[in-house]
Amino acid sequence: MKVRDYECDLQGIVNNANYQHYLEHTRHEFLLSIGLSFADMSAQGYDFVISKVTLNYKVPLRSRDEFRSQLYVTKEGIKYVFHQEIIRAADNKVCLKGTVESVCIHEGKLIRETPFDEILKPYLIAQS
Amino acid sequence: MKVRDYECDLQGIVNNANYQHYLEHTRHEFLLSIGLSFADMSAQGYDFVISKVTLNYKVPLRSRDEFRSQLYVTKEGIKYVFHQEIIRAADNKVCLKGTVESVCIHEGKLIRETPFDEILKPYLIAQS
Amino acid sequence: MKVRDYECDLQGIVNNANYQHYLEHTRHEFLLSIGLSFADMSAQGYDFVISKVTLNYKVPLRSRDEFRSQLYVTKEGIKYVFHQEIIRAADNKVCLKGTVESVCIHEGKLIRETPFDEILKPYLIAQS
Amino acid sequence: MKVRDYECDLQGIVNNANYQHYLEHTRHEFLLSIGLSFADMSAQGYDFVISKVTLNYKVPLRSRDEFRSQLYVTKEGIKYVFHQEIIRAADNKVCLKGTVESVCIHEGKLIRETPFDEILKPYLIAQS
Repeated sequence: MKVRDYECDLQGIVNNANYQHYLEHTRHEFLLSIGLSFADMSAQGYDFVISKVTLNYKVPLRSRDEFRSQLYVTKEGIKYVFHQEIIRAADNKVCLKGTVESVCIHEGKLIRETPFDEILKPYLIAQS
Repeated sequence: MKVRDYECDLQGIVNNANYQHYLEHTRHEFLLSIGLSFADMSAQGYDFVISKVTLNYKVPLRSRDEFRSQLYVTKEGIKYVFHQEIIRAADNKVCLKGTVESVCIHEGKLIRETPFDEILKPYLIAQS
Repeated sequence: MKVRDYECDLQGIVNNANYQHYLEHTRHEFLLSIGLSFADMSAQGYDFVISKVTLNYKVPLRSRDEFRSQLYVTKEGIKYVFHQEIIRAADNKVCLKGTVESVCIHEGKLIRETPFDEILKPYLIAQS
Repeated sequence: MKVRDYECDLQGIVNNANYQHYLEHTRHEFLLSIGLSFADMSAQGYDFVISKVTLNYKVPLRSRDEFRSQLYVTKEGIKYVFHQEIIRAADNKVCLKGTVESVCIHEGKLIRETPFDEILKPYLIAQS
């Protein structure tokens, strides 16, 4: 991806909140790539909601910077945890490192197992 | 309303697109104030969509500026036209002047008369 | 480009203001591609500001839609006019058609000729 | 503050990233209220940057919800930590609880003491 000027603020760097947009877009693209869409899951009565986000800002992205946005996923108890990184293309510097914790709600209750676990399983990284 | 820092861009002025957000929020607040909500109208099968926007940028708003956002409405044929202005509070300078044209879709067709015309009528300004 | 989910609103379509972001990004990419950057021009004392935007909304873009954003430029008196279109990739439908008028300010005054006219000239389309 | 429709996403709730906008605006308003502005501090060579953000999402805000955004500040070593909460006005439910860690850079180095400590001191809450 590439920084768009309107994502930058007064200081000439990407506004802190916009990194969350990059991370969200990356998660959605990943899920779509393995055949999962929020719309479909929601239509089947399963809503994934974000419960916690932790973002470590390392190096700010600037106007026109190109970057890679990568992730891996773990399952920790009831939570799916997305481990995400944004890496500046020019020098491979890690600009942001974060975790996004997500839970699944079905019929108004948090559930531990979802019909999508099977689809996600091959992509889950074991936590030691 | 008051400019929020994250709405400003590299040049220290409100990003052009954000004025549309101000205008949209003002229209929605106006409609709510007279008892009309997009959600309710949509639930009844009437979708209002914007067909044309014209924005004249006069004076840029900057970080922390306070401003008034005002409007009046006309009906022109099939269209509801919102005439909107954003005015800087400090000196009453007009910062932006725009028109937003909206049409109503019901059962897949553009319609000329809507059940909401009666509610809007007292607020319509006659065009000469 | 591709619609990102966070650009869509309650109705599941791209929020009207976000099209202006697409158009801005396209203009900046175009200018960069011919060697012009806002930062550089501003550093030389030439500020381009948008004076008027007209947007005709034809067909709404939805989540995940891919689209092309294209433009051509004309010079009309003191103004550079960007004629822009957003076209849905799947069926080549024109989603949005707009013009963005820009003027150049140098030493506090609107100027008719700029040092960048030469660079833009080969890309200007004659208006008949 | 009040949720604006364009801040909501496909699910009808405020997009996760927009809470960071609310938090940022609250911090900036707080700092201005005690006489500190980013612009002024930056002009004196002191840049405050965010190093870490932790957000716990409890209850989603929806279109038109009114909310309070409150904070207190602690100093932990080199860091200023903003402890922030967003509380729905209708029922005083905590919607989001987060911490935002900020450090100060002067002449390219992280500094422990800043000329602004004196101004912030009366507002710092002691951590036990």
